[in-house]
Amino acid sequence: MLAGGVGGSRFVRGALHAYPGAEVTVIVNTADDITLHGLRICPDLDTVMYTLGGGIDPERGWGRAAETWSAREELEAYGAQAGWFGLGDRDIATHLVRTEALNAGYPLSEVTRALAKRWLPPELGVRLLPMSDERVETHIAITDPSQPSGRRTVHFQEYWVGLHAEPDALAVVQTGLDAAEPAPGVLEAINDADLVLIAPSNPVVSIGPILAVAGIRTAVQRTAAPVVGFSGIIGAGPVLGMAHRLLPAIGVAVSALGVGRHYGSRRAGGVLDGFAVDTVDADTAAALSAGGLPTVATDLLMTEPAATAAFIAQTVAHVDRATVPSPDTRSSARSQP
Amino acid sequence: MLAGGVGGSRFVRGALHAYPGAEVTVIVNTADDITLHGLRICPDLDTVMYTLGGGIDPERGWGRAAETWSAREELEAYGAQAGWFGLGDRDIATHLVRTEALNAGYPLSEVTRALAKRWLPPELGVRLLPMSDERVETHIAITDPSQPSGRRTVHFQEYWVGLHAEPDALAVVQTGLDAAEPAPGVLEAINDADLVLIAPSNPVVSIGPILAVAGIRTAVQRTAAPVVGFSGIIGAGPVLGMAHRLLPAIGVAVSALGVGRHYGSRRAGGVLDGFAVDTVDADTAAALSAGGLPTVATDLLMTEPAATAAFIAQTVAHVDRATVPSPDTRSSARSQP
Repeated sequence: MLAGGVGGSRFVRGALHAYPGAEVTVIVNTADDITLHGLRICPDLDTVMYTLGGGIDPERGWGRAAETWSAREELEAYGAQAGWFGLGDRDIATHLVRTEALNAGYPLSEVTRALAKRWLPPELGVRLLPMSDERVETHIAITDPSQPSGRRTVHFQEYWVGLHAEPDALAVVQTGLDAAEPAPGVLEAINDADLVLIAPSNPVVSIGPILAVAGIRTAVQRTAAPVVGFSGIIGAGPVLGMAHRLLPAIGVAVSALGVGRHYGSRRAGGVLDGFAVDTVDADTAAALSAGGLPTVATDLLMTEPAATAAFIAQTVAHVDRATVPSPDTRSSARSQP
Repeated sequence: MLAGGVGGSRFVRGALHAYPGAEVTVIVNTADDITLHGLRICPDLDTVMYTLGGGIDPERGWGRAAETWSAREELEAYGAQAGWFGLGDRDIATHLVRTEALNAGYPLSEVTRALAKRWLPPELGVRLLPMSDERVETHIAITDPSQPSGRRTVHFQEYWVGLHAEPDALAVVQTGLDAAEPAPGVLEAINDADLVLIAPSNPVVSIGPILAVAGIRTAVQRTAAPVVGFSGIIGAGPVLGMAHRLLPAIGVAVSALGVGRHYGSRRAGGVLDGFAVDTVDADTAAALSAGGLPTVATDLLMTEPAATAAFIAQTVAHVDRATVPSPDTRSSARSQP
C-alpha cells in the first residue's frame, strides 16, 4: 500500500480487515516531515504506526491517546517558534528516540523499524517503510499580500496546520526530491506484490511525493500486481483534510473525476488498473470506466474498518476477477511458501 | 556567588533576601550536565533558574512545578535508556530550546542568558553564568563486583540519580576540565565583586568543579573582595544530597571541619576569608578559627529565605567588620555609579 497519514492509516486498518493474515508493506509518505525544536517529526509514519498499534487518539485521528501538552505550553512561554504545531508530550518521546538515532547515523527506514517494534507486533503482518531515507519536504508557495512579491513559500506543515490552508496555494514543491531514492525494500515490495493499493490519501502531498521518488512510479507501472486506487474526493470536497486547497495548484480538478484522470490507467501511462469513487460520483465511475480505467462507485466513507474493508474488497474484485486474488484466496495463501 | 543546584539555589534566594537590590552574579556548576536522548540537560543551571524564577517544584526542590511525565513514560515504553532520570515534560521544553541553540553554535553562556530572560526579570538583579562554555562532566569510579576489574565508571547523574550513590565512590574525575575556560564574565565577576559567597553546595561535584576551571580558583584567591564559605555538612552528614558519599573519594573527612580545611584560608593558600558551620559544630568553629580561618557557628538550615539571609549576614559581618560592607550599606549603595 501507498499511504499518507490520517486517511492512509484508516485505509490500511480497513485493508488488514479485508485481508486477514496478509503480509502488508505500507510505503508511507515522508514529504510531510519537519524538523521543529531540533526534533525530526514524521507525521504520516507516526499516524500509521500509532493507528495500527492502538496508540492513536481516536477523536483527533492524529497524535497519541491520553496525550498531555506541557512541553508545548512551555515552548510557547519561551517564545520558541512553531507554537501552532501539535507537539504532544507522548509524541515528543517518539521524536526524541527517532532524532537521536538519525543523528547517530541510522537511516530513517531502520529507525522506523526500531520504533515500530513497540507498536506493530509480528503477528500483525505489517511492515512500515518510509518512501525514502533521504529528506524530502513539501513546500507551498502561497499568496501573501504583506510581501513585496505578493507571495512567500512555507513548509507544508505551516500551510496545513499553522495557516489552516487558508491562503491560496500557488505552487507545490518537494525539496530534496532530486536526491531521494526509494528506501530499502520499497521497490522490491512493489515488484513482488500480489496487489498494490493506493490509499485515498491526498494526491498532491501524500501519494504524489511517493510516486515522485525516482523509480517508484516506474515500479508501480511495471509490477505484475494489479494496482487499485481510491478517491479521497467525494463530490466536490475531500473526505478528510484539505486536498481541495492543493489540487488546483497542480492543475487537477477538485473532483473524483479529476483525481481518477490524474492517476490515470496503466494502459495509458498512468498508475492504476482500477479505481473507486463514492456512490455520489456514480457518473464519474461511468465516465472513467468508459475512458479505460475500470472504476467502481461504492460507499467510500471509512467509518469503521469493516466498512473500509468492504469497499476495498468490492473494488479489487471489480478490477480484474481473472488476475486479482480475492480476499479469501489471499488470506489462506499466506501459509504457502 | 559560586553555587550548585538544589542547595545552591536556596542559598542564592536567601542571599537575595539578605542583600536586596544587590547586583548578583551566580556562577553555576555545569559538571552535572548530561546529554540524554539527544537533549543537553544542565540540572544546576535549571534548578537555580527555576527556583529564582518561581518555576521550581517546591516539594522536590528540582524540576518544574505542575510537571507531567508523559514523555518519560513513553521513553521507557520504547526501551530507551536512562529511565532513571527525572525528565519532566515541562523541563523537556527547556532542554529542547537549549539543545537547539547549542547545536546552532551558540555558547552555553548565551543560551543560559536567553533562557533566563523568561525566568529572571531585570529587577531581580541576578545574572546566571555557567562556570564554563566548554563541556565538563563529572564521572565517578564505583565498585562493581560484576566487572572483572571490580569497578566501573559512570556519569555523575547515573551515580547520583540512577544508583542513589549506593556504590562506594573510588574516584571522581571531571572530563573536559583541561580544555575548559571560564565562561565570559566569570573572572570579571569575581575580580570586581564586593563580596564572594561560596554556597553550601557539594564541595566535590558542585563547588569543586567550578574552582577547578582554569583561572577561577586563582581569581577567587586574588579578588579584593572577602570570600565567605558555608558548610554543607552539619554534624556527620550533609544538609541536602549525598556529599558524604563523595567526600571520602577526594580524601576529605565527612564533617564541617573536613570541609573547612578542604577550602582553607586564603592566607594559607586556600580560598576563604571566613566560614560558617552549624551550631552543632561549635567545636569545629573554634578549631578552624584558631587555625586561621575565622568561622561562625550559626543555624545553617535553609528553612526559608529569611533564615538563610540571617546566617549569611551574620557570617559576613563576622568575617571582617572593617572591610566587608554590611547588608544595609550594600543595598543602599546600588544606586551609586
